[in-house]
Formats: sequence, structure tokens, C-alpha cells
Amino acid sequence: MDTQVDRELLEKIADLIGKPVGAFNIRKDCGCDGRVSTEHIKIDDRTDGHAGIDIRILDGTKGETCHIPVIITKSGVEETVYNDFYIGGDCDVEIVAGCGIHNCGDQESRHDGIHTFHVGKNSHVHYSEKHYAEGDGRGEKIMNPQTIVYLEEGASIQMDTVQIRGVDSTKRYTKIVCGKGAEAVITERLLTHGRQVADSDMVIELNGEDAKGRVISRSVAQDESSQVFRPCVVGNAKCFGHVQCDSIIMGQAKISSVPEIAANDTEAQLIHEAAIGKIAGDQLLKLETLGLTEEEAEDRILKGFLA
Amino acid sequence: MDTQVDRELLEKIADLIGKPVGAFNIRKDCGCDGRVSTEHIKIDDRTDGHAGIDIRILDGTKGETCHIPVIITKSGVEETVYNDFYIGGDCDVEIVAGCGIHNCGDQESRHDGIHTFHVGKNSHVHYSEKHYAEGDGRGEKIMNPQTIVYLEEGASIQMDTVQIRGVDSTKRYTKIVCGKGAEAVITERLLTHGRQVADSDMVIELNGEDAKGRVISRSVAQDESSQVFRPCVVGNAKCFGHVQCDSIIMGQAKISSVPEIAANDTEAQLIHEAAIGKIAGDQLLKLETLGLTEEEAEDRILKGFLA
Repeated sequence: MDTQVDRELLEKIADLIGKPVGAFNIRKDCGCDGRVSTEHIKIDDRTDGHAGIDIRILDGTKGETCHIPVIITKSGVEETVYNDFYIGGDCDVEIVAGCGIHNCGDQESRHDGIHTFHVGKNSHVHYSEKHYAEGDGRGEKIMNPQTIVYLEEGASIQMDTVQIRGVDSTKRYTKIVCGKGAEAVITERLLTHGRQVADSDMVIELNGEDAKGRVISRSVAQDESSQVFRPCVVGNAKCFGHVQCDSIIMGQAKISSVPEIAANDTEAQLIHEAAIGKIAGDQLLKLETLGLTEEEAEDRILKGFLA
Repeated sequence: MDTQVDRELLEKIADLIGKPVGAFNIRKDCGCDGRVSTEHIKIDDRTDGHAGIDIRILDGTKGETCHIPVIITKSGVEETVYNDFYIGGDCDVEIVAGCGIHNCGDQESRHDGIHTFHVGKNSHVHYSEKHYAEGDGRGEKIMNPQTIVYLEEGASIQMDTVQIRGVDSTKRYTKIVCGKGAEAVITERLLTHGRQVADSDMVIELNGEDAKGRVISRSVAQDESSQVFRPCVVGNAKCFGHVQCDSIIMGQAKISSVPEIAANDTEAQLIHEAAIGKIAGDQLLKLETLGLTEEEAEDRILKGFLA
């Protein structure tokens, strides 16, 4: 049964209006609310007893998309879901995940999504994941995503994660293991407000020759929220790694950024940059002279920063 | 008794040739090898039973220097020494510490120097500390310095630390607590070679309004040596903090850099940059075309980097 709440959540987290094109699996309140496999992308229930699905993408699959959104519309739903991706060689695919929680009750609702990607030789994956929660009940909305990626020779992943609003507590863990010539690019966008807490751990292991890793993390902490970032890039071969974390701090918020770069090879080249500060006064002033109120100007700057 | 070894160590670690000008205390093999107090700088043995000295610097002392080098010339000497500095208001003084170990035996020689500075209102302290060890015995040469600094309103410290060569194992810990308008600048230069290990933890707490903290860390890891850096700047008020770590990795060395910036106030502005890489090929080439051998070119670049 498709409700207004479902539709709104799906649009927020996966830009979905109506049924997705291509393969998809929609998980709703611990059940399957729709699934389509295609010729090249097979989606099946797991066989090991855990909740979740196996997604198998055939060698040479190009230009196809797979949507696997999760929505929770009830209060008191708590789940840990394991999704495993087996992506063949020479693929170029887009995977859209995301989780939306609508919790108007007083009980905690929690989704822990554990995604493991095995990406075959020379394949490229674009993986995006949006997290959003809403509901004026007193029940906490919690999401703890874990993403583990193994990139074979010449494989690459672009991973874009966004936490829009409403998630009371999140513990993110991302690990990417790069083989020879593999490349990982992670962009993380995170907004916290109220008394929310967010914790993001990331490890990129550059194990193969000419592996590349790049992390671009941008966050805004408002009100009394707090954020901790621990991105880590380890260079075990001739490789290049770059981590960039920028945060805007507002209200009574707290932000801590603890990046690590570790070189275990003379040919590893690793760079890190991080900055925490408030919105620049001159930027606000400029927009205000163009006729915006202070709130509108602030909002405009934050949107641009998190875009 | 002044030996050739003593003289050479003192020159290496404190640029001392002959007796220092001003107040000084020379510690040699767990004993006092010379002490002079001046009208404004009083040096006394501790009265709490610990090894070490109390240094009291009167209000308004300007342009004076205090040397407190430590040398160990025997194998098997192990000591923990506590030196406390009480620096009055409106001072401008230079303190030169440093430790040199000459160990030709098979036993471990270790100096753990624990320095605490209480720096009064509007006083400026320039503190430098050089560490050097030598000796072809099999005994380890170990130095574990701890430096704790409390800066009152408007006070500042420039702390320059250098580990030149020969120190087999070091665990450095530095903590600076900045009051209103106080400023801490730390420059760290560290070279490791052979199988040496170096570990440097730093915490700068920016607690007072308009406090400033700056860390400039440069290191070279050669051969099979390993280094770990954990500089941390915490902003608890309107403040500015900047951490910059650059490392050159050579041979089979390992370097890990784990900086932390933590903002607990909207007006805290914190920045961190870190880079690990090998000597740039074009720099080497340039010097080689000027007639230097590869080794000479490398040496020239490292000297410039650690200067």
C-alpha cells in the first residue's frame, strides 16, 4: 500500500517519483515493498538467515541503475540489514541507496544498513546514499550505515553520502580497499541540528600500485548538535591520497575532526586538510546587501556549502 | 670535570661553548655539574623529593637567558627529572633546554624530562630544546620529554624543539593551556633513522578569548624508522588555531599523522594541514644539474626542510 508518507520519503532519499527505472528493491518497515530484477542485475533474498539482499551484476553491464531505498514509517522499528553487491568486470553502474524514517511515535526507530561491495576489474560504480528522518514524536530516529568496498584492479567507486535532516543519531563506518590502479572518491555531506550526534569513521586502504583515494567531507553543525570525523587514508604502495574536511559550526554545536594519514611506503603521497569555522561575515553581508534577510543569507550559504 | 665528550654534547644541544651567560644549571649523569642564579632568575633544588630544579623568574625580567642542559655520558643511566618554571608577569626571557646522551656501552640510557611552565600575565617565553644522542654501543638512547605550559592572560610561548640524530626511542608529550589573548607557537623538527621510533602527542587548549595556537611540525623518517604524530588543538572560546605537519618519507620508513581539531565554540576557527611524501624529483634534479651528487642534493634538501 502506497501512502503519501511513503512517496514523500522515497522522493527525499532517492529522488524517486513513481516506480524506478531498472532494477530495484524497496524495503518498507522490515518487509519487501517491491522488487524487480533485470537481465543484468539480479536481486535475491539472502540465504544466510540475515535480513537483506544479494545484488549480482553481470560482467559488462553498463549504463544501468539499481535503486534499493529503505523506508521506515512506524515507530519502534529496529533492524540490521545486510546488502551484498557482487559487481562483475567492465561494468559502469549506478546504485542508489538511502533511508528515510518517519517516526511520529515515542519509540526509537533504527536502521543499520551494512553494505558490502565487491567491484570487479575495471568496473566503475557510482553509489549514492541519502539519509533523512522526520516526525514530531519523541522517538529517536537512528541510522548506522556501514559500507565496505573492495576494488579490484582498475576498479573505481564514487560514493556520495548525504544526511539531510532529522537523524537524531548516526554512527557511520566506511572502509574502501583499493587494488592496483583502483580509485575511491568519497563525498560526504552532513547536517546536524537540535541535539543530534553524528560520528563518521572512514578508512581508505591504498594497497595497489597507483591506487588513488580522495575524501571530501563537508558538514554543518547547528544548535546543540555534535559531530566527530575520523577519516583515515593508509598508503601501502605507490599511491596518492587526499582528505579534505570543512565544517561550519553554529549555535552551541561541537565539531571534532581527527583525520589520519599513514604512509607505509616511500612512494605514498598523502595530503590532508581540515578547517572548522563559522560562516564568514563578509559572505553574509554581501547577500544581505542584495536584499536577503540574515536567515535567508545564512540558508543560501549553507545550501551552497552542502550542495 | 669537563671532558671533550661533555663539551661536544653541550655545543650540539645548547650551542654552548664554555660557560653560559646568565643563569644556568648543567645536569650531568644525575648530578649537578654547575649552577648559577642571577638577580632575577633563581634556580634551586626541588624540595619535594623528586630529581630536578625549580626556576623562579621575577616580574619584569627582560632580555635574560637561562640554560638548563642535561648530558648523560655513561651507559645504564636512567632518570626522570622534574623542572618547574615560575615566570612572573611582564617578562621576556629565553630558556634553553636540551639533552645529549653519549652511550658507548651496552646498557640503556634514558632521560625523561618533565617541564612545567607557569607563565605570568603578558610575559613572553622563548623555549628551545634540542635532543641528540651518539655512541656506537648497543645500549639504547631514550628521551621522553613532557612539557606542560600554562599561559596567563596575554602571555605567549614560542617553543622550538629539535631532535637532531641518534635518539633510538622518544615519546614526546606537549600540552599548552592558553588563557585570554595568550599565544602558543610550537615548531617541531624531528629526524629519525635506523630503526628509531618517535611518537609525538601535542594538545593546545585555547580556553581564553582571542587565544591563538600554531603548530609547525616537520619531520624526516629515514631507513626503517617510524614516526607517529598526534597534534590536537581544542578551541573552547573565540580563538584561532592552525596545525601544519609536513613529513618526508625515505627508505622503508613509516609515518602516521593523526591531527585533531576540535571546536567547542562557534567563534573557534581551526585549520589543519598535513602532507607526507618523498623528496620531489625535480628538486633533486635541479641540484644535481648544479653539480651535486644525488646524496649531496638529498642532504641539502633535508637540511633546508629541517632548518
